[in-house]
Parts: sequence; structure tokens; C-alpha cells
Amino acid sequence: MPYIPLKENLPGITGLLDYRLDTALPIRQLTHILLRGESTLTEGERELIATIVSNGNECRFCTAAHTAAANQYLDDPAIAEKVKTDLDAAPVSDRIKALLVIARAVGKNGRLVTPDMVETAKAHGATDRELHDTVLIAALFSLYNRYVDGLATVTPSDPAFYDRLGHILKDKGYLPSPDRYATL
Amino acid sequence: MPYIPLKENLPGITGLLDYRLDTALPIRQLTHILLRGESTLTEGERELIATIVSNGNECRFCTAAHTAAANQYLDDPAIAEKVKTDLDAAPVSDRIKALLVIARAVGKNGRLVTPDMVETAKAHGATDRELHDTVLIAALFSLYNRYVDGLATVTPSDPAFYDRLGHILKDKGYLPSPDRYATL
Repeated sequence: MPYIPLKENLPGITGLLDYRLDTALPIRQLTHILLRGESTLTEGERELIATIVSNGNECRFCTAAHTAAANQYLDDPAIAEKVKTDLDAAPVSDRIKALLVIARAVGKNGRLVTPDMVETAKAHGATDRELHDTVLIAALFSLYNRYVDGLATVTPSDPAFYDRLGHILKDKGYLPSPDRYATL
Repeated sequence: MPYIPLKENLPGITGLLDYRLDTALPIRQLTHILLRGESTLTEGERELIATIVSNGNECRFCTAAHTAAANQYLDDPAIAEKVKTDLDAAPVSDRIKALLVIARAVGKNGRLVTPDMVETAKAHGATDRELHDTVLIAALFSLYNRYVDGLATVTPSDPAFYDRLGHILKDKGYLPSPDRYATL
């Protein structure tokens, strides 16, 4: 049971973003800019960053939600699965792999990012902006993971729930929208 | 040296918030609402939350900056110092102490917050809103700490720098403002 009263039909982050709308708005805006705004990283690649960070922080709700969102964009659900369980062998480009290594470190602690990790990413073609955005997305999901678990929100066990949420995150993005969770 | 090119006169977070203004805006807005908006927690208490989280994450820039900001609001610099080094003995109320224990846990991982920690805070009078805001502030500074250190931004060694920054954070808050860092 959550540590504060949240609407029962809104598990995980959804109830928290409904609890305090004034703080939810800039969180939603930041997420939308980073994950759906213009970028040389695809939406699927950015959802993989959210996924690997959430997985490293053991936030079950966020991991399942962003795995589902990544799967909305990527051809094969094996990609997100492999990114979580065996990044070295994941079927993504060397550039994305190097950025995911950095994201995973950031999720634990920013000080774990090494010059070598950054050099590897740059050698595979990552731009300064991609490095910036990877670190900021990883930092943002470090916020989400701690917000969701720090207040002990509910984690639904039904995989179909996350499929529905993944559709919403693709179709509506992250900004507030009317009846946002009507299909949840 | 930072991993991406940042203005040399803007160390730590200040250069990052200047690097990408569209993402900086919602980060600044969220911080201003949480740390300067209406609350039953004082500005000084909220800066202590930022301080204990940054200290736990070993983010030297953020720790020094928010220690300085807390000291702008609190009577005695020994308070922030003690919160960082020996929370049990810190001269703050039992309610604030219990909230700082929760904040410190969130900074590491949200799953480290226990029902006992929450019960203690409630027993000392903490409200649901205070619990929510404590966790969200701790999560937000987990973002900042990772953003600042994940890109290897510069940490000035001169204590006077942080005194000047602490004044800016009290006088101008966190929203964008013209010539914000003119006195830095």
C-alpha cells in the first residue's frame, strides 16, 4: 500500500502525477521534450535508456512501463529484453550500446561514468548532444524510480496493464491530456 | 574537464542549465515550486533535504551549493553540517529528522524507504503532503546529482564561490532570471 493516499485506479507513477498537478506539469514537460522531442536518438532508443536505468534501479513499475513503451517503437521485443539482461549481446548499434552503458552508470551514480565510457561512445559516433541527453534522461529516470518506489506505489502484476500503458505513452506522449488513462 | 563543451564561467549545474535551455526550463520550474513554493516545510528545511541527498550521492558541487543555500535561511551553519555528518545529533525537530532519514534513503534508492521510517515521520506529525514533497525533492536532487557528475562538470574549490551561489539561490530562487549569474 502506498505511503500516502493515491487513487486506486492509478498505480505506479500515474497516481503520483495525479496527486500534485503543479509539480507533475514540469516533470511531464521535461519527459516529453527529452523522449519525444527532436533528437538524433529515436524514440525507441530513448525508451531503452529509460528501461535500462529503471531496471538497474530495480524499479519494477518503471521497468515494465518503459519496456512496453520501447516495444511499441522497436521491431522486436527481444531488443529491450537483451538490453536489460545482457547489454553486450544486445542487437543495437555500438553507438547506442555505448550510450546505454553510460546511462546504466548514471542511474547508479553519476560518478561511475568514466572518461573511457565517454571516449568509446564518441569513437562510435555519439555527439555531445547525444551524450548530454543520455545523461539527462538517465538522471530523470533516476528521479522517477525514486519517486515511484520511495512512496511505495502499487506495481500491477498483469502484463496486459503495461501493454496498455505502453500504447498510451506512444499515442499520447508524456504531456497532460484529457482522459489520458481512460484505456488503462 | 566536462565531457561536453560547457561555458567555463558556469561550473557545476549552472553550465548544464545553460547548455540546453528547453530542458532547463521545466527543471528550474519544478525546483522552484518544490523549494520556494507554498509549503509547511520552511525553505531552510527543504534546502536541508537537497543537502543530505547530495551529500549521500557524493555530489560535491550540489552538496556545497545547497549547504550554502540552507545556511542563508538557517540561524546556524552547524545545523547543515550536523545533518550531513551526524543526523541523529542534528539540532532539528524530530519531524524534520524523520523526513531527512527518508530523503537520505530515497537518494540511494526509493526501495530503501521502510514503513517504519514513514510511521516514525507520521508519529512526529509529518503530513502526507510533507512525505510526498520530501520524497520528490530527494528524487529531484538525485536527478541533479547524476546530471552534474555524469557529465563531469567542474567543482570550484573556493568556498566563497558557494557563498555567492547560496545568495543567488535565496535572492532569485530557481526560475530563469536575467543576469542570473552576474555576481557569481
